[in-house]
Amino acid sequence: MSENGALPLRGKVLTVDTMNANVKKVDYAVRGPIVQRAVQIEKELKEGVKKPFEEVIKANIGDAHAMGQRPITFFRQVIALCTYPQLLDDNKFPEDAKNRARRILQSCGGNSIGAYTTSQGIDCVRHDVASYIQRRDGGIPSDPDNIYLTTGASDGIVTILKLLTAGEGRTRTGVMISIPQYPLYSASIAELGAVQINYYLNEEKCWSLDISELQRSLHAAREHCNPRVLCIINPGNPTGQVQSRQCIEDVIRFAAKENLFLMADEVYQDNVYAEGCEFHSFKKVLFEMGPEYSSKVELASFHSTSKCYMGECGFRGGYMEVINMDPEVKAQLTKLVSVRLCPPAPGQALMDLVVNSPQPGEPSYQTFMKERTAVLSALAEKAKLTEEILNTVPGISCNPVQGAMYSFPRITLPERAINEAKAKGQAPDMFYCMKLLEESGICLVPGSGFGQREGTYHFRMTILPPTDKLKIMLNKLKEFHQKFTQQYS
Amino acid sequence: MSENGALPLRGKVLTVDTMNANVKKVDYAVRGPIVQRAVQIEKELKEGVKKPFEEVIKANIGDAHAMGQRPITFFRQVIALCTYPQLLDDNKFPEDAKNRARRILQSCGGNSIGAYTTSQGIDCVRHDVASYIQRRDGGIPSDPDNIYLTTGASDGIVTILKLLTAGEGRTRTGVMISIPQYPLYSASIAELGAVQINYYLNEEKCWSLDISELQRSLHAAREHCNPRVLCIINPGNPTGQVQSRQCIEDVIRFAAKENLFLMADEVYQDNVYAEGCEFHSFKKVLFEMGPEYSSKVELASFHSTSKCYMGECGFRGGYMEVINMDPEVKAQLTKLVSVRLCPPAPGQALMDLVVNSPQPGEPSYQTFMKERTAVLSALAEKAKLTEEILNTVPGISCNPVQGAMYSFPRITLPERAINEAKAKGQAPDMFYCMKLLEESGICLVPGSGFGQREGTYHFRMTILPPTDKLKIMLNKLKEFHQKFTQQYS
Ligand SMILES: Cc1ncc(COP(=O)(O)O)c(C=O)c1O
Ligand SMILES: Cc1ncc(COP(=O)(O)O)c(C=O)c1O
Repeated sequence: MSENGALPLRGKVLTVDTMNANVKKVDYAVRGPIVQRAVQIEKELKEGVKKPFEEVIKANIGDAHAMGQRPITFFRQVIALCTYPQLLDDNKFPEDAKNRARRILQSCGGNSIGAYTTSQGIDCVRHDVASYIQRRDGGIPSDPDNIYLTTGASDGIVTILKLLTAGEGRTRTGVMISIPQYPLYSASIAELGAVQINYYLNEEKCWSLDISELQRSLHAAREHCNPRVLCIINPGNPTGQVQSRQCIEDVIRFAAKENLFLMADEVYQDNVYAEGCEFHSFKKVLFEMGPEYSSKVELASFHSTSKCYMGECGFRGGYMEVINMDPEVKAQLTKLVSVRLCPPAPGQALMDLVVNSPQPGEPSYQTFMKERTAVLSALAEKAKLTEEILNTVPGISCNPVQGAMYSFPRITLPERAINEAKAKGQAPDMFYCMKLLEESGICLVPGSGFGQREGTYHFRMTILPPTDKLKIMLNKLKEFHQKFTQQYS
Repeated sequence: MSENGALPLRGKVLTVDTMNANVKKVDYAVRGPIVQRAVQIEKELKEGVKKPFEEVIKANIGDAHAMGQRPITFFRQVIALCTYPQLLDDNKFPEDAKNRARRILQSCGGNSIGAYTTSQGIDCVRHDVASYIQRRDGGIPSDPDNIYLTTGASDGIVTILKLLTAGEGRTRTGVMISIPQYPLYSASIAELGAVQINYYLNEEKCWSLDISELQRSLHAAREHCNPRVLCIINPGNPTGQVQSRQCIEDVIRFAAKENLFLMADEVYQDNVYAEGCEFHSFKKVLFEMGPEYSSKVELASFHSTSKCYMGECGFRGGYMEVINMDPEVKAQLTKLVSVRLCPPAPGQALMDLVVNSPQPGEPSYQTFMKERTAVLSALAEKAKLTEEILNTVPGISCNPVQGAMYSFPRITLPERAINEAKAKGQAPDMFYCMKLLEESGICLVPGSGFGQREGTYHFRMTILPPTDKLKIMLNKLKEFHQKFTQQYS
């Protein structure tokens, strides 16, 4: 206080000029300005403001339940039983659901899902995850000690990137990510102050991954940083491709040769639709390449309860498996995750159900399979539909949606639209998507939010809306694109 | 690959020498070596290894359910209803529980708790939090836009520290924390590469906070960093004190004068037991000090579902309220939290119930109050018991446990024990606690994990075990201390 007792006139302690500079550099398009505007428009509609549409259709985010997908009954029964164990006496619940709930509760402190779990995750859940991986990968062993449960896959990805970030200036850790990418990667790299290294997916070859492009990008990056990590998203977000076994083998060989830590984001592992495509886990391919690779290449792979057929995003469940991690580093990882105490227990329980779902002969098996198949076949149908309708529009070209939940079509924008956007200081595809939102209520994310080759324009659209709504949306989009093209030609 | 096709012989990409150096510096005693050894001993007991005790008593962590506390019925009913809405047709559930569940579900995308929520947290929950704060603080307004829901309080605390960390060398952000402290603070400061500034609580005056000590510590820190943040835990962990209104006012005045951002960790706000003690929120005191302060001092306060009477740690629910935050920084905060998508929805729902609990006249009110009161009075009784029994032991001296869930008694260790510990490279109180664990099965955390004045020794013990077990534990502890003292005298 000054002598007369008044407080000195000072500004804020925390301002954009004095805050964490890395945080400022973070960009996150999936929940960026378009989405904020969409929320606003929804409010306006509610308040009775007249618009050329009745409702906002949100195809901006991979949030299945928000788009009307129903939860898997069995999963919710077990979580309800874990939450309110009095229901274990209720004969409306099937025995297999009760057994799962009892087993999970027995692994919880005080038999309560409200206790902190061990930081690495509930023991029996980690065991079930390991068994699942082993089954999925044709018997290749998985060690529960290598499994870490996480708060969604996001948490695991950020944690591994954090461990890997070191050095200063030219020795700073470089992280190779695909372009287009899921913006969690660029955002975390910026936040950690690591160096983002872009490698471009090949749009002409259905967003496949060329080793020559990896090589080019790595070579260029070595001039200014220390590339140590290679991130792959398979099946791809935002691009919807499914990598071939051969491609994965090539990537692993490349990582081994170039001494890169591999991060395999496999949250869409059940979301494969296209004929001839199949999900191959990095773990499996690595081990099938023989001990020269399987004893050597460091790999972290990520899974989540948020995607696939369950779409349980709100529970924030996930796991990662770490392979060939230096034991001392693993001890550091275990210490690091313990600072946040533990991932949410209900999310851990849900992850358990995903990897330990009803089996033939169990009372819930048939319903479970029916629900699971219904979701996955609807997605397959919508993937096809999206590609077909979009490719009928002159000026839009869309690769097959082989997997995941997105299409990332390329759009041709008239010169005048590009100029008008630039005059406004907007990315041209942001300009396009914003107009689309205002005129038709469709909420998409511009390609610039994910990265794209200079001079090309895209948007990302989820295939999650129910089929009838998706059809309406695609046709509105068609109309809009034609009008937009005319208007600016 | 080398010319003959074999892989070059290289080491790991990621080793302790090449990993994130800040992560290496992180220490986290609450789940450190003592706890790891306790888990091991539990396994040995299960395998039939003979020990001088039958079971490990864990008084190392503030995890109420793990210590046998039962969840609040109403809370679990609502979460079960949200999880499995078919139960809304079940007349075993009371109407007020159903109403809460319906209201929460209506605020969720697709009416599912499995949808991502907005990153800041579900709208209606943030409104309920704001109303709760307003009620709690005698009508001082709270704006839902200032509320951020979090993944436990831990998440909020780390996020705010992250925003505040900037500068290099002598301009690097310094963070003032109490010693003893809750080790989340030192761990996060290390991870972020900020500078830890210690101010010591006054053990002689019941762990109170002296402004002169704040002044000393700030003054010293200004020589080598840029102190910008002052963290207070009230009621205190690990020290169990409750700060007086006067003290809080003085702290706020100090923060205003010295231009410090205030972080008030108030997760134990319902845990006040001692006669004459009362919880005063920083927000309330700040606003009662008049506009000169209330329009100026930047404050973030934190709450959690993990403590108080509910102890729902596994759900990872929490909120923070930010006051006087620069609007541009707030926009950055909103962007930052959006990268992780959202806090767990079940945790958000639980937070809602904490701030919007059954009211007089509602069917669940009486049971709720009975359960709540039972927990809080048992804690009050155990707080008293702990202090009383410990103070009967020569060589142990224990301040009153005014609040929170811990006692942090000071122990006198014989010179020979101290020397033996040092010869082993162990902190003397770690040596003591490890011996206690091996000989009696009691798991405590050594004071060195929280920080203490040089040359003093303590341990932290939770008061959470059920009363009968707590008594046994305290008496075993008494015995052990006497034996230990004799042995090393
Ligand atoms: C490729 C990819 N990885 C990770 C995530 C993160 O998902 P979550 O944190 O919900 O598990 C997403 C979410 O959309 C994703 O698309
Ligand atoms: C003072 C204090 N702050 C914060 C936390 C974090 O709790 P949570 O992340 O479970 O909300 C704890 C937990 O023990 C605590 O004691």
